[in-house]
Amino acid sequence: MPENSSHAGEFHRDTRYINDRIVSDLPPGSPPVLTPDGHYLWPVESGRYRLIGARACPWAHRAIITRRLLGLDSVISLGLAGPLHDSRSWTFDLDPHHKDPVLGIHFLRDAYLRRFPDYAQGITVPCLIDVTTGKVVTNNFQSITEDFSFQWRKFHHHNAPQLWPKDRCEEMRELMEWIYNTINNGVYRCGFAQSQHAYDTAYEQLWSALDVLEDRLSRQRFLMGSFLSEADIRLYCTLIRFDAVYHNHFKCNRNKISEMPHLWGYLKELFQIPAFGETTDFHQIKQHYYGVHSDINPTGIIPQGPDLSPLLQPHGREFLPGSVFPSEAGEPDRS
Amino acid sequence: MPENSSHAGEFHRDTRYINDRIVSDLPPGSPPVLTPDGHYLWPVESGRYRLIGARACPWAHRAIITRRLLGLDSVISLGLAGPLHDSRSWTFDLDPHHKDPVLGIHFLRDAYLRRFPDYAQGITVPCLIDVTTGKVVTNNFQSITEDFSFQWRKFHHHNAPQLWPKDRCEEMRELMEWIYNTINNGVYRCGFAQSQHAYDTAYEQLWSALDVLEDRLSRQRFLMGSFLSEADIRLYCTLIRFDAVYHNHFKCNRNKISEMPHLWGYLKELFQIPAFGETTDFHQIKQHYYGVHSDINPTGIIPQGPDLSPLLQPHGREFLPGSVFPSEAGEPDRS
Repeated sequence: MPENSSHAGEFHRDTRYINDRIVSDLPPGSPPVLTPDGHYLWPVESGRYRLIGARACPWAHRAIITRRLLGLDSVISLGLAGPLHDSRSWTFDLDPHHKDPVLGIHFLRDAYLRRFPDYAQGITVPCLIDVTTGKVVTNNFQSITEDFSFQWRKFHHHNAPQLWPKDRCEEMRELMEWIYNTINNGVYRCGFAQSQHAYDTAYEQLWSALDVLEDRLSRQRFLMGSFLSEADIRLYCTLIRFDAVYHNHFKCNRNKISEMPHLWGYLKELFQIPAFGETTDFHQIKQHYYGVHSDINPTGIIPQGPDLSPLLQPHGREFLPGSVFPSEAGEPDRS
Repeated sequence: MPENSSHAGEFHRDTRYINDRIVSDLPPGSPPVLTPDGHYLWPVESGRYRLIGARACPWAHRAIITRRLLGLDSVISLGLAGPLHDSRSWTFDLDPHHKDPVLGIHFLRDAYLRRFPDYAQGITVPCLIDVTTGKVVTNNFQSITEDFSFQWRKFHHHNAPQLWPKDRCEEMRELMEWIYNTINNGVYRCGFAQSQHAYDTAYEQLWSALDVLEDRLSRQRFLMGSFLSEADIRLYCTLIRFDAVYHNHFKCNRNKISEMPHLWGYLKELFQIPAFGETTDFHQIKQHYYGVHSDINPTGIIPQGPDLSPLLQPHGREFLPGSVFPSEAGEPDRS
């Protein structure tokens, strides 16, 4: 995520990204094409791009889950920065010789500087890197996952879920925007608030939104209905970090998610899907938040709790119709 | 509580106190009597002493609950410091003109200095002050409550509970010592640990002890059996602060007490006794911990959660025999 600015006690996320897109209608091998609005289009191409994420980061987690759910593992490789970083850059400190084995760099920053030698915004994950040049193509986490669904379709697994429901994309976009403001970024607005008032405001908005979703998920299996969507992925990445980190570290402590029966069952169901659970690393998540935010946790000590083993217990969501993968759906293909 | 020293990453509580005792076998009005071990004995006497506490402090809370349970309200007055203090002293900032109305002082420290002009230990609550001279008599929180039970008996309410079970005092002392080390002070050892190892050690001891008590309280109504004792008061003062503060602020987060059915029912039952619940001020408790420990919570922002309203729900402990006050016991007087 970008470096962040803050004034009047409120947390404001720096949302200036490299906004290039990777699109399906350019021939593989072609160079990036400048558009009238100043960004570039790059061709969808197997093996050309490397997704850089970090197990800790919820924004990167979205892209990692989506890549795997859609079956893009074999066409977009994955590099992973470690959980800790300083103010300059995420780093590949978990890799042999502390370098990403494909890009050959230690500091992710180097891929940004290769693209823009005077790059001054945040060095963030997720980002997609053109392996042939080592340059960052985009770090806009919202468009990365959207393009995985729409532009990379020809590489999707045959049973990949349709994450953007036909004819309801705008409705989902609005829902995701609201979830972003109140929940995904809302937990950060609680945790990074510099005044009691800013915290209180963010806290109220967060819990108001979670109450709405608790009610919604009492009546339907997933956020958009009976099928998994991009909205679920985006919510999951916050919910799965909630009891482990946000509840304590960001003071989002009205209750734990495990105390909200429908959200908890929903979270368990998602966690038990390999693309979700197997990409979730609580150790790195806790290392990151408790280790990097020395202004919130000066000692750097990492809490041992909570006990998250109940995530593997039966989710009990079968009382609501729905399925994650089309082949389980027993209903017409929604695409 | 005293100022604290810490080395090798472990938290060590300064337990050097003013160890005078107030005893029943000296005539009222008599001056303090020096004992061979260098401390003084003072006479039990109605109206002579003022208990100074603070709603925030768990150690003071013991004395406040005990005073009220035994019916000593009318013979020992109560002064209350505010929830915030600096490194020098608790202060009477909630009182008119920010002075204790009986002692006429703003800084509690002044009562310590009146006793010992060169007093160098911590300025702590609870303490008992000789109102006639304004000098601190004792700040040893362990002996204060014990003496309330044994020395002040002639002033006890006729239906006061017998907090020290005859013939089992040593057994209870051992239990309380173990609870002190693992739980009462254990939460501080988690929260004030300066190394991961020191934290991990304290955390394991804390949860091991809480698991033992969860089991114990599945089989008996109170810690010592079917009757309330001093051990329950001492445990309560930590448990009632646990979900509100220690779980987050001190990283005691394996689970909340509300997730341990027997401890939670037990805590609810105690909270619903006026001497316990009416002396519990969650607002001041949170103000204190989140406001004073700027090394743990640099922003000073106070979390809004958790929702503690379930403390008022039925406790469900009737399946175990027991009673708080003798008149409800239906059994022989244990004294």
